[in-house]
Amino acid sequence: MSEIAEIGEFGLIKKLTEQIQLTNSSTEKGVGDDCAVINPTTDTRTLVTTDLLMEGVHFDLTYVPLQHLGYKAVMANLSDIYAMNGTPKQITVSLGISARFSVEDIEALYSGMRRACEAHQVDIVGGDTTSSLTGLAISITAIGEAMEDDIVYRNGAKETDIICVSGNLGAAYMGLQLLEREKAVYHQQLAEARRTGNKQMEAELQYSQPDFTGREYLLERQLKPEARRDIIRALKDAGIRPTSMIDISDGLSSELLHICTQSQTGCRIYEERLPLDYQTAVMAEEFNMNVSTCALNGGEDYELLFTIPLSLHEKVSEMEDVKVIGYITKEELGCALITRDNQEFELKAQGWNPLQHKE
Amino acid sequence: MSEIAEIGEFGLIKKLTEQIQLTNSSTEKGVGDDCAVINPTTDTRTLVTTDLLMEGVHFDLTYVPLQHLGYKAVMANLSDIYAMNGTPKQITVSLGISARFSVEDIEALYSGMRRACEAHQVDIVGGDTTSSLTGLAISITAIGEAMEDDIVYRNGAKETDIICVSGNLGAAYMGLQLLEREKAVYHQQLAEARRTGNKQMEAELQYSQPDFTGREYLLERQLKPEARRDIIRALKDAGIRPTSMIDISDGLSSELLHICTQSQTGCRIYEERLPLDYQTAVMAEEFNMNVSTCALNGGEDYELLFTIPLSLHEKVSEMEDVKVIGYITKEELGCALITRDNQEFELKAQGWNPLQHKE
Repeated sequence: MSEIAEIGEFGLIKKLTEQIQLTNSSTEKGVGDDCAVINPTTDTRTLVTTDLLMEGVHFDLTYVPLQHLGYKAVMANLSDIYAMNGTPKQITVSLGISARFSVEDIEALYSGMRRACEAHQVDIVGGDTTSSLTGLAISITAIGEAMEDDIVYRNGAKETDIICVSGNLGAAYMGLQLLEREKAVYHQQLAEARRTGNKQMEAELQYSQPDFTGREYLLERQLKPEARRDIIRALKDAGIRPTSMIDISDGLSSELLHICTQSQTGCRIYEERLPLDYQTAVMAEEFNMNVSTCALNGGEDYELLFTIPLSLHEKVSEMEDVKVIGYITKEELGCALITRDNQEFELKAQGWNPLQHKE
Repeated sequence: MSEIAEIGEFGLIKKLTEQIQLTNSSTEKGVGDDCAVINPTTDTRTLVTTDLLMEGVHFDLTYVPLQHLGYKAVMANLSDIYAMNGTPKQITVSLGISARFSVEDIEALYSGMRRACEAHQVDIVGGDTTSSLTGLAISITAIGEAMEDDIVYRNGAKETDIICVSGNLGAAYMGLQLLEREKAVYHQQLAEARRTGNKQMEAELQYSQPDFTGREYLLERQLKPEARRDIIRALKDAGIRPTSMIDISDGLSSELLHICTQSQTGCRIYEERLPLDYQTAVMAEEFNMNVSTCALNGGEDYELLFTIPLSLHEKVSEMEDVKVIGYITKEELGCALITRDNQEFELKAQGWNPLQHKE
């Protein structure tokens, strides 16, 4: 392992950026000057989104491999560009790195970022690399393009529109619960081995891996989410332009409330229509959790939530991996979930709120 | 003082963003959707730059007021846009906030950012607000515009070009030394008061302010730097297009080496021509430091370093607050400082390297 201090800031930046290949014709100048220079396609709008991820708040390196973390950090940003019905083109990557990270660690993180960029034809065009007194900070800004008429905002939902969601919900959240449980088990066993002076057990624990057989899908959803470019393309191919759209990062309830608030509407969604994977349901059962609550409030799905005019109902029904979950109402009717036994519950943004963490 | 946890992430974002007024016609959508939407002026290029500032590495809140910190964080990014000969238009602001900060603290930080934006007609169009387990993290991305032919890169310097620098150098570095010295004195006095049980002295120290009379300029340069839009405008008015340009954030030597490396040239600069403020010289004397070293390697000047063709020498000589400090040579001649006693010293990028810090 090489210490970053040995090669310095410029050495590290060189190592990280020399493997970058630019793929977008709109990228005129990438890393290496005061700014990146982008030549936007004529008549397009520029889309900009940014995320800041802090160690211990957004990720736990005891179970998140750095390569996956890099991949996920990029995907979260690309997802926001797709949620505007746009095409991501460039990202900048800033890293705050504490001394416990080696050059190889940061290369692993960066390789995950590069892989995410390659999969979506996105260029890394700049950033900042600096030290941090404690932990890792990752700030990514994504830049994309869309024709003016193609852009879909959160505020365009209209009464009688139908509400659609891609993929399934709650799996990333269940993956997180699973990882947290295994981490707790590991720490308990380690404490026990130390308390009883069982050196052999302590040594074995260092190399032990929890058995996640049958739960791979949940882990993948948590550790390596995919931004839904395929859905954006399928919508275009089907000639469907959503009236409003948002990506699900804080949980379905929270995002649906954003759409309804900004569109000045209400909504009804049906519990029985919430898209769930089989593994999510099994895991929720095992954890004695309500699977609908997981689907409504579990974060990090990175699925797309959108509304379309009622007239396109048939078209959207033919789409793969998209499910109709409800409809938009007048604002006065509020936002509610209709349960399996036909009761109405007001939707609340319980979401995942990282500002509730404490120092 | 209000705790952030009380109003939550959405409450804080609302508080911070509700005072934002958009001033640029190119900003179609600011805060409030998955992305900001920008309508670039036809035929312009989009410039993007980003910075990540970490508490304890880039700033010390024992002597940096939050409002100034916000102002400076924005200026550092705008400076990069000007260094491309561009016009900044938008920024995004991401904050990682630990629990010791109050709502009022973050409002103070943000008000400094808003003030910097107002002074340069820049819109805050997005960002991310989250918690941090340790300290404050500030990530800003600035977006600007320039006509293709106006953009000035680092790599355009040619042999015989003359090297110019705006303002004066080393003052921000001396301001930092001064603040660090007063901080050390304060901690010594406090330790002494506690050791001797001098409660009155301890109490007085809490409210004491060091006397910075006569050193205000150095403090201002450190705490509240200004990005040099005036120089960019003056160059345009004078009909001067630099062949290369960079802003001085890591120190003159380091930046000049960037220009020479990327332009594949050498250079000669003259010690006697380094622009210095009187207070910088006095302070260096007091600290027993070589003032030229401060000017060469002290960071955070946020002045512009640029090269112009020899034929424009007369024109640039008439410009206010710009000084000719040397000339560009063939690459084989290397990069050197010519001292007052006519000796040549190779320029080295000692600069300010935050990655040398340790956890």
